[in-house]
Amino acid sequence: MAHLSDLDTPAAVIDIRRMQRNIERMQRRMDELGVAFRPHVKTSKSMPVVRAQLAAGAKGITVSTLKEAEFFFSEGVSDILYAVGMTARKLPQALALRRRGCDLRILTDNADSARAIADFGRERGEVFDVLIEIDTDGHRSGIKPDEPALLEVATALADGGMRIAGVLTHAGSSYDLDTPAAQQAMAEQERAGCVHAAERLRAAGFSCPIVSVGSTPTALAARHLEGVTEVRAGVYVFFDLVMANAGACSTDELALSVLATVIGHQVEKGWAIVDAGWMAMSRDRGTQKQKKDYGYGQACTLDGTVLPGYLLTGANQEHGILSREGERDPNIAERLPIGTLLRILPNHACATGAQYPAYQALSENAQVEPWSRLHGW
Amino acid sequence: MAHLSDLDTPAAVIDIRRMQRNIERMQRRMDELGVAFRPHVKTSKSMPVVRAQLAAGAKGITVSTLKEAEFFFSEGVSDILYAVGMTARKLPQALALRRRGCDLRILTDNADSARAIADFGRERGEVFDVLIEIDTDGHRSGIKPDEPALLEVATALADGGMRIAGVLTHAGSSYDLDTPAAQQAMAEQERAGCVHAAERLRAAGFSCPIVSVGSTPTALAARHLEGVTEVRAGVYVFFDLVMANAGACSTDELALSVLATVIGHQVEKGWAIVDAGWMAMSRDRGTQKQKKDYGYGQACTLDGTVLPGYLLTGANQEHGILSREGERDPNIAERLPIGTLLRILPNHACATGAQYPAYQALSENAQVEPWSRLHGW
Repeated sequence: MAHLSDLDTPAAVIDIRRMQRNIERMQRRMDELGVAFRPHVKTSKSMPVVRAQLAAGAKGITVSTLKEAEFFFSEGVSDILYAVGMTARKLPQALALRRRGCDLRILTDNADSARAIADFGRERGEVFDVLIEIDTDGHRSGIKPDEPALLEVATALADGGMRIAGVLTHAGSSYDLDTPAAQQAMAEQERAGCVHAAERLRAAGFSCPIVSVGSTPTALAARHLEGVTEVRAGVYVFFDLVMANAGACSTDELALSVLATVIGHQVEKGWAIVDAGWMAMSRDRGTQKQKKDYGYGQACTLDGTVLPGYLLTGANQEHGILSREGERDPNIAERLPIGTLLRILPNHACATGAQYPAYQALSENAQVEPWSRLHGW
Repeated sequence: MAHLSDLDTPAAVIDIRRMQRNIERMQRRMDELGVAFRPHVKTSKSMPVVRAQLAAGAKGITVSTLKEAEFFFSEGVSDILYAVGMTARKLPQALALRRRGCDLRILTDNADSARAIADFGRERGEVFDVLIEIDTDGHRSGIKPDEPALLEVATALADGGMRIAGVLTHAGSSYDLDTPAAQQAMAEQERAGCVHAAERLRAAGFSCPIVSVGSTPTALAARHLEGVTEVRAGVYVFFDLVMANAGACSTDELALSVLATVIGHQVEKGWAIVDAGWMAMSRDRGTQKQKKDYGYGQACTLDGTVLPGYLLTGANQEHGILSREGERDPNIAERLPIGTLLRILPNHACATGAQYPAYQALSENAQVEPWSRLHGW
């Protein structure tokens, strides 16, 4: 077995102990709230991570692409929700998955797509399980809880012979909030809007068994989830600097970091150059407008201890510029000599992970093993 | 053979005709300037692209990782320059490549690494060909042309029995300039600084056969390249919106685009939702501080015609928000109905390409074939 210091750099390191704690924290919270938990696996796209989530009590998974659905189904997960609006051109792929035995649920937020699903399903003799997407915070897709379109979509599905599996919402604007009170209020807005949509459907005579809500901040902030049947969250499994700024975690809970080597200095500028640039970190600058801007990442020692004030302040494709924020460190070359191994905490775990074909999973006995992950569509 | 409209979305489409023109334009310019051209393949990481560059007259390639070197060497390219500062931990990988017959040149900008290379080379009986990195614009790594460190590094290499292959610089700050005069001045600064460093080495009795400069903007802007032996450039092969803002190309010359499908609308906001989010475009917001901010990309029709004013103004992982800049389009749902296929021009071709396991190469007869590309380290 390899150790961290044996790895080629850059490498994406998962601290398994921290990941496990994050998984248990979220599952415990969901158990307390009395809802099922369906993790969004777009964050890790890696089977060992998903296996740990399911072992802790998760019921099924959420995916962001049909390729994820195909991959995790081939790995034995069959309860899968594809949480991006379905279009006609993706229906054959969804049908093929269901025909192979995958319990795939799909999503729509408009009558055109609902009719396309129904037409395709009828032609092929398939009754799709379809959730209707609700917009509870105005940040992306979905039908507002009070809009007439909700019943039009339900009618198009039901008249076309499809099963209405329920309603789904994602209060993604919770990422922009950074106080417990604001997160709680957003969690309640997400819950109330989605439950209201479910009630409108039921009042109109439609079935609506699933009421699915969630984002990492609202899942952790919710006081109660009355009327909700399941919660989805993704990034909680690793957390990241955006989530630390949002108050969802501390930097000591971040389970993903990028291992990098110091390859040079520009002493007069106080720079150490590392071999982790934007290709290794991703171009995500999610903390740029938050209360603390971490540049391209927060530097830590090899054992994961934060080096306060030392940030990846610049990035080219394979070069990162590491410097002290605020004032130049004249001793950067002595502090971080050529060859020093560092770990850099990322702004956004979903974006950083996507840059790697595999994670390097670090166990408590300080050994690492590769955990492959999915890439592309 | 497939056509564009058969592809799953999102997909990264290369317009082969445009790519070929970009390749020929750059090679012609290099021929006129009387220098060898060594394209930086970090942009495409794809063999059919590199094959077209070599066929047009390129002499060898530049890589940003040793994995690229291994891959392209296995595909038959042996003249390879690894243009990121070498560290001790990567030397065994470099040695293995040379032992297999790869004519790999490596780079350093400090005496510690130079000694590490020399010590390792001597121990293994290998004479590495090493270039010394020169900093001509203060944007990243390298030794300033006048610094005493230049001769220290050369001494460490020569005393250690290594071959000094030459000097190399990259005026990456040219990306931030947007007038022909400023680009020309930067090209001359890059050339003069690198040539000066070469002359200092020669005056001190060291050999310095290669004088290597380049970036896409300076390569296109240079008036003459006296004293330079080779030029490197990468992104010119596809160009992108950052390069269009820098004045290096027009948007009609961009050879890479992301094929996307309209999956929904928020009519009251004037939004079309597409299935190309930041995972499909990358998080690169390189035009944010340029003269025109394209958001996450410029929308085009399926045939590649720019839709003026229609930009990807927001992006989640698998959702893009497409809207008219400036004012809401009340007819967005009629203009871009559900199912519409669009092509989105990216800010930064190197970052967007990296999100895909393969490109879809579109030929003049409107057929597409997959061109695989390298991922990770």
